[in-house]
Amino acid sequence: MKNIQSYVQEHKDRFLNELIELLKIPSISADSAYKNDVLKTAEAVKNQLEKAGCDSVEICQTKGYPIVFGEKIIDKNLPTVLVYGHYDVQPPDPLNLWNSPPFEPVIKETELHPEGAIFARGACDDKGQMYMHVKAMEFMTSTNQLPCNVKFMIEGEEEVGSESLADFVKENREKLKNDVILISDTGMIAKDVPSITTGLRGLSYVEVEVTGPNRDLHSGLYGGAVANPINVLTKMIASLHDENNHITIPGFYDKVEELSTEERAEMAKAPFSLENYKKALDINAVYGEAGYSTNERNSIRPTLDVNGIWGGYIGEGAKTVIASKAYAKISMRLVPNQDWKEITQLFKTHFESIAPDGVTVKVNPHHGGQGYVTPIDSVGYQAASKAYADTFGKTPIPQRSGGSIPIVSLFEQELKSKTILMGFGLDSDAIHSPNEHFGVWNYLKGIETIPLFYKYFTELHN
Amino acid sequence: MKNIQSYVQEHKDRFLNELIELLKIPSISADSAYKNDVLKTAEAVKNQLEKAGCDSVEICQTKGYPIVFGEKIIDKNLPTVLVYGHYDVQPPDPLNLWNSPPFEPVIKETELHPEGAIFARGACDDKGQMYMHVKAMEFMTSTNQLPCNVKFMIEGEEEVGSESLADFVKENREKLKNDVILISDTGMIAKDVPSITTGLRGLSYVEVEVTGPNRDLHSGLYGGAVANPINVLTKMIASLHDENNHITIPGFYDKVEELSTEERAEMAKAPFSLENYKKALDINAVYGEAGYSTNERNSIRPTLDVNGIWGGYIGEGAKTVIASKAYAKISMRLVPNQDWKEITQLFKTHFESIAPDGVTVKVNPHHGGQGYVTPIDSVGYQAASKAYADTFGKTPIPQRSGGSIPIVSLFEQELKSKTILMGFGLDSDAIHSPNEHFGVWNYLKGIETIPLFYKYFTELHN
Repeated sequence: MKNIQSYVQEHKDRFLNELIELLKIPSISADSAYKNDVLKTAEAVKNQLEKAGCDSVEICQTKGYPIVFGEKIIDKNLPTVLVYGHYDVQPPDPLNLWNSPPFEPVIKETELHPEGAIFARGACDDKGQMYMHVKAMEFMTSTNQLPCNVKFMIEGEEEVGSESLADFVKENREKLKNDVILISDTGMIAKDVPSITTGLRGLSYVEVEVTGPNRDLHSGLYGGAVANPINVLTKMIASLHDENNHITIPGFYDKVEELSTEERAEMAKAPFSLENYKKALDINAVYGEAGYSTNERNSIRPTLDVNGIWGGYIGEGAKTVIASKAYAKISMRLVPNQDWKEITQLFKTHFESIAPDGVTVKVNPHHGGQGYVTPIDSVGYQAASKAYADTFGKTPIPQRSGGSIPIVSLFEQELKSKTILMGFGLDSDAIHSPNEHFGVWNYLKGIETIPLFYKYFTELHN
Repeated sequence: MKNIQSYVQEHKDRFLNELIELLKIPSISADSAYKNDVLKTAEAVKNQLEKAGCDSVEICQTKGYPIVFGEKIIDKNLPTVLVYGHYDVQPPDPLNLWNSPPFEPVIKETELHPEGAIFARGACDDKGQMYMHVKAMEFMTSTNQLPCNVKFMIEGEEEVGSESLADFVKENREKLKNDVILISDTGMIAKDVPSITTGLRGLSYVEVEVTGPNRDLHSGLYGGAVANPINVLTKMIASLHDENNHITIPGFYDKVEELSTEERAEMAKAPFSLENYKKALDINAVYGEAGYSTNERNSIRPTLDVNGIWGGYIGEGAKTVIASKAYAKISMRLVPNQDWKEITQLFKTHFESIAPDGVTVKVNPHHGGQGYVTPIDSVGYQAASKAYADTFGKTPIPQRSGGSIPIVSLFEQELKSKTILMGFGLDSDAIHSPNEHFGVWNYLKGIETIPLFYKYFTELHN
């Protein structure tokens, strides 16, 4: 394709300012207080897709937040790329740890990003990465170089389980028909080490509630004589891992795919410094399942983590109370072949079974999704690999990610097409954390690389 | 004494309305947001003591909240009773569980209180019980029947550890000189089963903080590879009790006084229905240290309870995060001979020692106090026993309480006098809980009984 770099250079300030406007809207799907902002964001995405050259763009209502769908069909005989992304973001708390307000984007230089990075919730996950595709589309249409058909499907419930998307996909197989699905919602190993994510973990997210006495009690008058729901909850959660940090839920590992020694050796080749990893997190040691390396623990192995816990008096000072209830939010990352619905049921059955007399336990499943693996010999992967090779000057490394994009396996099942995960983020982007950011260099590099994927995919496709 | 009952009947509406005014002020000592209300309450108490006939009343400043001191010395050769109480209250949360606002007192009938009960934070603990003494004083002075000297010491930091009181007592031994200390901050077995508390548990209250990575992390990208502070905290807390619910802190039980079979048999005679106990709390089973009865577990045995726990995302919906920090408030109830400072140190040393690599742990001691036992053959106990016998028509039962009034042992040490705990509350009063209340009958019965204690104590004293 011609003049990509010059086009990006010429328009980069506008590309940044448009993204910054999008980042100013707090589209927090997990918190209903932000409903209007989420809807406002959908409108903004619709407008940008129209400006980028889509022929028709619609806001498709769902029982949850709407899905923005746009397309440009230039020739039925040419292949079709379906771009997926999401316009919703994670909650920003804890707010006090942000160096600048999460929804007042600022560009600041960092050690890793001398060209500057955009600091804001959603800068990388996923507004920034999604918007790269909108700008790549703009480049291809405005320079008459769009080589194939394009469809966009941008949702607003990814951070809360994409429930409406699942129905939408099932009900619109024809509308969404495509030859490959392209997603930028993952990362790469390093700025100078491009990588393509070939595996994702599944997810099961539950909330548990332990109820003891029917009211809060004075810990002096009742302490030691009744089950304390918080103490009980800690015992129950602690029992979910054994001394080797294996998960103790019966049947949990039954379907876990065990990688061969060769595959594990291949993975181990990815550049990784345990010292830098520990230094970046300011920890004196890593921690995890016995018998696996850090990179294996967070990619090919399933996990169980408490994401939130609360109960009793958590205000200033002291209160000598035995709480009536204690709660925890618990998520399990799953690997290919583990079925999230089955795992959720195994958890529920086990957790309820270990509740001692004196308390009652409720397990409320939140959401989940399947894991996914994409083959590196597919046309889509090859096209992506060549695109990276052109812009980065080196062939990207296939990489398993520990994260989850629950709908990827749904796409394959319902739309019968493979998903290519072209991520331009970095681990240090702090997605889901305070001070999330996205390198300006990465943002522009993505806009440069994506059109080349279209070019090679159209050429390789037959 | 003459006409107590008629005086109480004649003035009961005023007695109730005055208490209700006092209960309207949210004197929450644990929360600095209520500082002015706590100070306002001290003023109100001062005014009431003056109206009740004290010759001199002063608000004594401390490094914390002030102590209201008042006295009436009628004859240096007569004995002196020192009345202790507190005007501060527990935080009211969880607010949503109150049937009426905690600081808008209402009188409602209940099954147990056909005469009505005052619902408000502090109704029983301790504004209501403290105010019985003010009204008993009013009766004795206004009818010229005060048989001895009286001193009042009403503090505002009982719910947060009485730190300033300790200094105040040490610095004012002469001013506080007395022959017996009288406190109503405990309960009795039932409306028709009067009892006098002869034992109190000590307390050690700490806050723990577990820190893992230096920022919140994405649970997909890091899950399974770094220590999750919440998971670690649950493991650490769970390990503090063994399978028999014995506390595992080395040395914790070394100084625990083991009661003789005879003493335990004596205790077991107190009327108690396990069925009613479980029904009242809506639990299917009690829970606690193996080898001890419910009444022993909450009175003669030490305990360790989590009073609050928090960490990670506790808002609406789901957030897949690994928190950087997790916290818990933990209190231990101690029995006579256990030193709270020593136990606090044992906890700190042990808890820090069981922290796994990958996290750092901080233990911040909040406050504490010693346990206490009072002999039933003392003049004070005998005087109280006769007073109850007159107004209840039966001799009260000596009872060990699981609660703590940390300063009682301090009083004995610094002022060399015994404390008599004349409590008129009931377990069902829900102190420290939503819907705290105090029976109108109990309130008036207390005002009736207290003057008789003065009478008998003066007669028996020599």
